[in-house]
Amino acid sequence: MTCMGKVVLASGVFDLLHYGHLKFLEKAKRSGGEDAKLVVVVARDKTVERMKGEPPIMPEGERRALVEALKVVDKAILGFEEFSMERVLQTVKPNIVALGYDQGYLEEDVKKAAEKLGMKIEVVRIGKFGRRLSSSEIKRKIAKRFAK
Amino acid sequence: MTCMGKVVLASGVFDLLHYGHLKFLEKAKRSGGEDAKLVVVVARDKTVERMKGEPPIMPEGERRALVEALKVVDKAILGFEEFSMERVLQTVKPNIVALGYDQGYLEEDVKKAAEKLGMKIEVVRIGKFGRRLSSSEIKRKIAKRFAK
Repeated sequence: MTCMGKVVLASGVFDLLHYGHLKFLEKAKRSGGEDAKLVVVVARDKTVERMKGEPPIMPEGERRALVEALKVVDKAILGFEEFSMERVLQTVKPNIVALGYDQGYLEEDVKKAAEKLGMKIEVVRIGKFGRRLSSSEIKRKIAKRFAK
Repeated sequence: MTCMGKVVLASGVFDLLHYGHLKFLEKAKRSGGEDAKLVVVVARDKTVERMKGEPPIMPEGERRALVEALKVVDKAILGFEEFSMERVLQTVKPNIVALGYDQGYLEEDVKKAAEKLGMKIEVVRIGKFGRRLSSSEIKRKIAKRFAK
């Protein structure tokens, strides 16, 4: 009997793709065991603008394509402009949702939506990787150089 | 009879990996036809510092790992701190060297080194992709936002 691998869902903005993102995605996929598939939901420009007050540096189509170009990623899709955890879960049908160290606020959202949909979904938390720069820190470092 | 695919060599700094880099690498690989292997030489921090007056934002180990994590890339290696086209060609043994739109200055270097080494190497020039931001333009855009 062959068993299908688990589907792991990860999400993020992935503006200025960096090594920390890669490590996060690799750990996320590993959480699904062998034969896991990693599906990544990339946040829409409008969603980011609404949440952070300004759009990402790189447009959503390019952010999505770059994430999907990674060996570790099986599929990358754009999120919904009107963010909805339920619609995301219905679309991807994950066995596992992997949350990054700064995505803890999504845990309740996932659990509530899964319960409402009657889906059995495990939430795993992925830790941070040493002293690596986050996207915001990278941006600050760049800005500092230009200000010199 | 099976023919081995061509080895295509591309190189760059790949600080802040972006969609333009991906398109460049995809076109570079395609220039080698089917079964081509793409080897990427990633510039060392010290080489970049010597050329541009400051080191890249992201350290060389992370830049290399991220480039190698791309599906299109078969292998990514760090360059030599004392930049030497001859050593690069001897190490990678490429059939083709693909140069980006802003790497024209390397063409003579490649040709001279190949002649000296008695290697038959084709140089292909990869054009720019529409109005995409370069790494420097991305950095300027970030700096501008922070200056507001």
